[in-house]
Amino acid sequence: MKLTFLGTGNSAQMPVYNCDCIACARARHDLRYGRLPCSALLQTDDGQWLIDSGLMDLSTRFAPGALQGIFQTHYHADHAQGLLHLRWGVNLRIAIYGPPDENGFADLYKHPGILDFSQPFHAFEERRFAGFTMTALPLEHSKLTYGYLIRPDRGDSLAYLTDTQGLSAAVQDFLRTLRPVHCVLDCSYPPLPKPGRNHNDLNQALAIHAAIGAGTTWLTHAGHELDRYLMSHPDALPAGVRQAFDGDCIEL
Amino acid sequence: MKLTFLGTGNSAQMPVYNCDCIACARARHDLRYGRLPCSALLQTDDGQWLIDSGLMDLSTRFAPGALQGIFQTHYHADHAQGLLHLRWGVNLRIAIYGPPDENGFADLYKHPGILDFSQPFHAFEERRFAGFTMTALPLEHSKLTYGYLIRPDRGDSLAYLTDTQGLSAAVQDFLRTLRPVHCVLDCSYPPLPKPGRNHNDLNQALAIHAAIGAGTTWLTHAGHELDRYLMSHPDALPAGVRQAFDGDCIEL
Repeated sequence: MKLTFLGTGNSAQMPVYNCDCIACARARHDLRYGRLPCSALLQTDDGQWLIDSGLMDLSTRFAPGALQGIFQTHYHADHAQGLLHLRWGVNLRIAIYGPPDENGFADLYKHPGILDFSQPFHAFEERRFAGFTMTALPLEHSKLTYGYLIRPDRGDSLAYLTDTQGLSAAVQDFLRTLRPVHCVLDCSYPPLPKPGRNHNDLNQALAIHAAIGAGTTWLTHAGHELDRYLMSHPDALPAGVRQAFDGDCIEL
Repeated sequence: MKLTFLGTGNSAQMPVYNCDCIACARARHDLRYGRLPCSALLQTDDGQWLIDSGLMDLSTRFAPGALQGIFQTHYHADHAQGLLHLRWGVNLRIAIYGPPDENGFADLYKHPGILDFSQPFHAFEERRFAGFTMTALPLEHSKLTYGYLIRPDRGDSLAYLTDTQGLSAAVQDFLRTLRPVHCVLDCSYPPLPKPGRNHNDLNQALAIHAAIGAGTTWLTHAGHELDRYLMSHPDALPAGVRQAFDGDCIEL
């Protein structure tokens, strides 16, 4: 089983439109540092699943039938905007598994097209897919949001935790007990004098890493302030913590 | 002054995801027949303006400062989804001129970022821009929608009328009196046994062409059913009426 980071940026992506800061300039001149909307691809021998759908080109990236389903962490624009067009396909159903958010995003529920929103997760539900299980973990965000614990039948476990600012005691205890080998974690901001809103800064992300005890924590959902900070503080990340970039793969 | 069709499709675009009809197959094999979300670019010696913002790649198409503003016909997803990302630019303001729709699209009003929605048109308002005037024309659609009559200081007039099904007597009278040289018109469907909803079929579009008396009527917002119909009925369009394709230009 494999997880590929398709996007590791926040809603502004990288480079930020009209920003000439050092991190945005780097991303503009070296595409390896560009960041698309935060999302990932899960691949097994039996198929592939998206985590979040904020990429704007889903219909050209994925041939019809190539996706077994989409796990939504939540329904903010940068995590769901790619569905606005994908839904208008024909002769196909695509299962969207997310939190039971009454509103969803824009008019997706009103006009779902080929999307099937009928099977949302409930909190801490564990559900079986071909070759792995997914457990939905309620996160701390401005909209109803679930992270996911992914446990392959064979291979390493991975917790995917974005968007969130901190973790509830229940989720932290759950993960500390299970100690996933990998943790993909919202870290949008550099260390802030006081915590930001809705997303972890680096201090909070490192505290979560320490609390859970994952083998490796991969920081995602980066804003340009964080990239700037890490460019000038190359030793800021302790052993076991790394920043994810678009295209990075984790073999589970 | 020049108008370029950046997109001439409906919300499904062309080819439709997973559709193998003859029109979608043609669009898949010959990119000239592809249709992006319905939108256009207005260019004068003094600058350029978008009509609608459903293209998903606005931030790479238009360098910062390259757009003087965006005229929104309305706030359905396929006409506004490109703003979801563009708004997160920095050190820039982009004026969005549209109808006074209380809801707008998704969370754009709540989190406008660099977008300035503060100057909506009111019905039949005429407003001056560098080198041309725009008059807002209320259309007949499922959401508050304005078409625009564009009158260059020097050059031919153009009415841009989408999305709409039919026209009110007031708008039809207004346009019949002014007789624009060009009319860009919603024509989403082939002739239907009974009228569809929210968009013109070909019968309605031809009736509007006859009623207004524009020199040339350009059909836009095409669905694949219409493209299929016109492939098998090549003589269906009378003199003075043509289908627009992405990339077509009208010199005014």
